[in-house]
Amino acid sequence: MSEKIVFTRGVPPPEAFPTGDLGECFDAAVREDANVVLQYGQQQGYPPLRRALAAEYGVEESEVMVGNGSLQLQDLLSAHLITPSGAVFTEQPSYDRAIATFRRRGARTVGIPLEEDGISVEKLEEALEKEVPAFLYLVPDFQNPAGATLSLEKRRRVVELSEEHGFWVVEDIPYRKLRYAGEDLPLLRSFGGSRVVTISSFSKLLSPGIRVGFALGPAGLISALTRLGEYTYLSPVLPTQAAVSEYIERGWLEPNIERLKELYSPRLSTMAEAVRRELPDAQAFIPDGGFFVSVMLPEGANTENLVGRAKDVDLVLTPGSAFFADPLDDEPAAGDRFVRLPFCAVTPEQIDEGVKRLAGLL
Amino acid sequence: MSEKIVFTRGVPPPEAFPTGDLGECFDAAVREDANVVLQYGQQQGYPPLRRALAAEYGVEESEVMVGNGSLQLQDLLSAHLITPSGAVFTEQPSYDRAIATFRRRGARTVGIPLEEDGISVEKLEEALEKEVPAFLYLVPDFQNPAGATLSLEKRRRVVELSEEHGFWVVEDIPYRKLRYAGEDLPLLRSFGGSRVVTISSFSKLLSPGIRVGFALGPAGLISALTRLGEYTYLSPVLPTQAAVSEYIERGWLEPNIERLKELYSPRLSTMAEAVRRELPDAQAFIPDGGFFVSVMLPEGANTENLVGRAKDVDLVLTPGSAFFADPLDDEPAAGDRFVRLPFCAVTPEQIDEGVKRLAGLL
Repeated sequence: MSEKIVFTRGVPPPEAFPTGDLGECFDAAVREDANVVLQYGQQQGYPPLRRALAAEYGVEESEVMVGNGSLQLQDLLSAHLITPSGAVFTEQPSYDRAIATFRRRGARTVGIPLEEDGISVEKLEEALEKEVPAFLYLVPDFQNPAGATLSLEKRRRVVELSEEHGFWVVEDIPYRKLRYAGEDLPLLRSFGGSRVVTISSFSKLLSPGIRVGFALGPAGLISALTRLGEYTYLSPVLPTQAAVSEYIERGWLEPNIERLKELYSPRLSTMAEAVRRELPDAQAFIPDGGFFVSVMLPEGANTENLVGRAKDVDLVLTPGSAFFADPLDDEPAAGDRFVRLPFCAVTPEQIDEGVKRLAGLL
Repeated sequence: MSEKIVFTRGVPPPEAFPTGDLGECFDAAVREDANVVLQYGQQQGYPPLRRALAAEYGVEESEVMVGNGSLQLQDLLSAHLITPSGAVFTEQPSYDRAIATFRRRGARTVGIPLEEDGISVEKLEEALEKEVPAFLYLVPDFQNPAGATLSLEKRRRVVELSEEHGFWVVEDIPYRKLRYAGEDLPLLRSFGGSRVVTISSFSKLLSPGIRVGFALGPAGLISALTRLGEYTYLSPVLPTQAAVSEYIERGWLEPNIERLKELYSPRLSTMAEAVRRELPDAQAFIPDGGFFVSVMLPEGANTENLVGRAKDVDLVLTPGSAFFADPLDDEPAAGDRFVRLPFCAVTPEQIDEGVKRLAGLL
């Protein structure tokens, strides 16, 4: 049997974790502020970390909530904003767990086609003529699963539309700081809309196991989410938030991000080259950062039971359909032709071999 | 102004936290098992901690889930078991946050009167003739808020009834190991019913801020809760679970519990004496352990706006009505006469002075 190559979840590789430094920060954080860190309370998150995030993003502390990972925050946001028989819009394709969360909280979840420069604004406007969703969920930077980045002009327009029609925009930006080339585009929140919520986490910058995610939004919304969080889990887990705060205070976060970029950047290049070489007929999304390259296979490709046949050659793929919400109108969902290719937790050798195996199946 | 005396939440005092030892365990746990502790996964909880709990309680690892505090587990359990228009039974009075959680998840929450030796089995049988709840929620040891402990005979009978009628029994036992006198009674689960779920946490034994709670139950139920947890928060927070595991492995938990008993036991004695001296006409619950003494004030007592008038004399009380679910039949809820008196986070001097102030208001 050949070596198994795993192109599934977007997890960091073990060498990404700053283990010793994090251990030291846990110890220091618990000792230095035990009466806060080890006690009940701080429902809105550990205050020094909220202060650091408020300063970084230029918002008030009342506009920052830190919770047990960003999916938990998305679940609370869904519980708060989704109305019975209401809709949520996402990009099509979108983050599979987000789609599942919105559906579990009762929303019809409608996917608006994604283009190379982000969500199709034309299709979004079309959809808005029929109904206004509780919110539009976007991953504007190095999108999960496709890798697309939303253009400047579209960012501005999406925020305008949210004001005109009265829906929330949720920008989920866990990959934003992992940019390997090019320049940052402004956050959607920087266009000044009153209905933008920014969600992110330290899962891709430090560690997923610590489950430290945060939300930025208007104080009224943050306070409602905080109350919902208190009813759900009483207090957030605090030692992990305090360790992150300590890590940032020591000035270790930026150097760690630089280290991760050096680790991941060559893997992106290798993946991009392999896709161009092995899958020349596929429509490829090659991002400037993040965790994912993706391909839309050509219509004639043999995608019948692709995941199963991949398994037979020791290649593990996520079924593309998992990333697809309900289609807008009668457009067929192209889930069976969509393949997400996470490149961070695989070596350049595994990338070359994996893409070659994929190409051999089509 | 006199010193403010706080008889509200059941929080441990700062001197209860084994700060340095916990800091050391965090550091060690993160370093020794980084690839598990810092990564996604372990949806059912950190494996070494699950193993330790399985061994302690004599169950299989598949019957143990560790999550972000016991309220989160109660919320997942409620989401899983409560049916539309269904009921949950609790003791009357019961833990205020549990009542709120069951209601938020859609259950009519009906309180079955509590007696000195635990829930009234007679009233429970009466209630069961009318409807079978999704589950019966009990705090059998040193109950929150009253302090009552469920007798051996009633434990056996409650489990029998759950089998006869087909409802779950949730025994919540966060205070069980803080026994200052007398002997442990068997867990409800030890009577062998197939429908008992045991919930507990390390909040009262180590630290609430770490949010490490666990549930024991049949493997099928635990697996359903684990899936619901994964949909809600992806993975539980792992470094805190690993630190607890390390703390237990080093043999530090039992000595810490002994230290806590030495700290809390004189506070219970002082509270018991103060209540007997200052409130001789009240019906007092004096437990052998835990965090709470409580009193049911005599019917003639002046309880009008008690919480407000207490505040005027710098005494902070929780409104008794918060602990009361819907009454069974037309029995009036006696919430206005019920006062919970947490004794762990107040000094003997504060206890004496606080109970004297309370007596002065009646």
